[in-house]
Amino acid sequence: MKNQRSYEWESTGEALAQLRQLSGIEFLRKMMAGELPAPPVTAALGFRLETIEPGRAVFVFHPEEFQYNPIGTVHGGVLATVCDSAIGCAVHSQLPAGAGYTTLELKTNFVRPLLKGTGEARCVGEVLYLGSRQATGEAKIFNADGKLVAHATATCLIL
Amino acid sequence: MKNQRSYEWESTGEALAQLRQLSGIEFLRKMMAGELPAPPVTAALGFRLETIEPGRAVFVFHPEEFQYNPIGTVHGGVLATVCDSAIGCAVHSQLPAGAGYTTLELKTNFVRPLLKGTGEARCVGEVLYLGSRQATGEAKIFNADGKLVAHATATCLIL
Amino acid sequence: MKNQRSYEWESTGEALAQLRQLSGIEFLRKMMAGELPAPPVTAALGFRLETIEPGRAVFVFHPEEFQYNPIGTVHGGVLATVCDSAIGCAVHSQLPAGAGYTTLELKTNFVRPLLKGTGEARCVGEVLYLGSRQATGEAKIFNADGKLVAHATATCLIL
Amino acid sequence: MKNQRSYEWESTGEALAQLRQLSGIEFLRKMMAGELPAPPVTAALGFRLETIEPGRAVFVFHPEEFQYNPIGTVHGGVLATVCDSAIGCAVHSQLPAGAGYTTLELKTNFVRPLLKGTGEARCVGEVLYLGSRQATGEAKIFNADGKLVAHATATCLIL
Repeated sequence: MKNQRSYEWESTGEALAQLRQLSGIEFLRKMMAGELPAPPVTAALGFRLETIEPGRAVFVFHPEEFQYNPIGTVHGGVLATVCDSAIGCAVHSQLPAGAGYTTLELKTNFVRPLLKGTGEARCVGEVLYLGSRQATGEAKIFNADGKLVAHATATCLIL
Repeated sequence: MKNQRSYEWESTGEALAQLRQLSGIEFLRKMMAGELPAPPVTAALGFRLETIEPGRAVFVFHPEEFQYNPIGTVHGGVLATVCDSAIGCAVHSQLPAGAGYTTLELKTNFVRPLLKGTGEARCVGEVLYLGSRQATGEAKIFNADGKLVAHATATCLIL
Repeated sequence: MKNQRSYEWESTGEALAQLRQLSGIEFLRKMMAGELPAPPVTAALGFRLETIEPGRAVFVFHPEEFQYNPIGTVHGGVLATVCDSAIGCAVHSQLPAGAGYTTLELKTNFVRPLLKGTGEARCVGEVLYLGSRQATGEAKIFNADGKLVAHATATCLIL
Repeated sequence: MKNQRSYEWESTGEALAQLRQLSGIEFLRKMMAGELPAPPVTAALGFRLETIEPGRAVFVFHPEEFQYNPIGTVHGGVLATVCDSAIGCAVHSQLPAGAGYTTLELKTNFVRPLLKGTGEARCVGEVLYLGSRQATGEAKIFNADGKLVAHATATCLIL
């Protein structure tokens, strides 16, 4: 069965211009409030930042078929993408204006399948360590029943 | 700047019905030939299977802005998704009819940024170990200049 | 400066004979009580099981120079070994008699150096997911000041 | 059965004094030649650097019972330690005098058990990426029959 999907997304130019001028948490709060464009990939995959606090970020999404792998569940890469975003934003939320970061690596464990039509899933990202050169964090995705679906850790380079 | 993106994708029902009846390589060859629907996530993110051989799979994609993270490069999660697919297909290509697999974990290293308009990137996935209960594999993504962008390893459970 | 180190360790034969006849927690409690031999590697590297509860294991050790890498801190592999043990025992503690497990992979992040003479370090391992075919867990190592030194996640196959 | 093990190892002071004054490959060649002390952990676990070239390091070791885990095989942490060393030395071999590195994270997959009395095992470490701020590498351990036992990737911070 053929399906068509259309969605809108915004170019990142305006957000990038402000990226280094705002503290991380100011930048992310503006993004969450819609005053700055959300990252394009969030529209492509259908997830959004719901909560941002110092050292903690929560993303939410609905499992849908357009996110599926060949074996009929949400693709692990989609889960990895949400985990990566949650850890990255948790780290970013603790950086002052002018500081940047980049993710060096991400490892994700997949423990339960996630199926369309099961309601809103949540991904909670938290900083585990924040130093002057590196930061690490973890993320956990829970299905609508609160059961663990995936968990991840990542290493970020502080710039 | 607002952008609109529309794309078509196919439901996986027909592919799933044949998933266990074909050997992995037959299944993947039919998928590559368009006789079975490609996984929905490949349409959402814009990548496709280009080569499948026993123990080896190559995916290709064009870096585009709709794949971007907030800092203006292709999101690491997109790279992780392609690596996951390449390793999964490499493993699947060596499984007989009736056997299945699921990815337990994926770790991806990001070593160079990938930017829109730089031409076709390639992801080569290969099996490192295939046993009766687990398989492992690695994937490497190269930009159009042949430079390494990301590399990954994954663990699969054989069912 | 040349140093000499001598230590005693016990062969695992007796422990192995009881490995599948006891539940995991019974086996580990006997090991902790000295009724079964501890794993040889714990003597080679100088760490020991201090607490075992269902789904949770704590190991302790003193950072010493014989554990050092070429750059003058406890070798990351030593930290990985303790994390691997803590996660493995946490998983084992929830398995019934007759069940076994093997670690498929371990990822360890190193966030602070650990130096000799800084007092007893602790590694807390906990189960994150326990299913019929796989289990996952995490471990964190803290120095004597309670600061995070390393953290890890692992995937185990249930046999 | 009680066993006793005694071994000699050298303090790292002399090596550390020269660590930043020699290029990485000069430092490692002197270490391999016995002109500088080997890292203490190599004596504790019984492995040694056999080959060093720009971007590549090989360690060898004999699987022995003192390296065992509770389930009667060489402990995964021992394999992780050797992989960490091989990747670290491969990276170090490409650094000029005055530059340093530290390992941020290591992920190791365990694919086959390694048993005592099976002859010399080899671990080959290679650089995958070397930049100004990070380096990544991979290592593979092969048993005496040349079969893959474990494989790993690591991320290093360049200082």
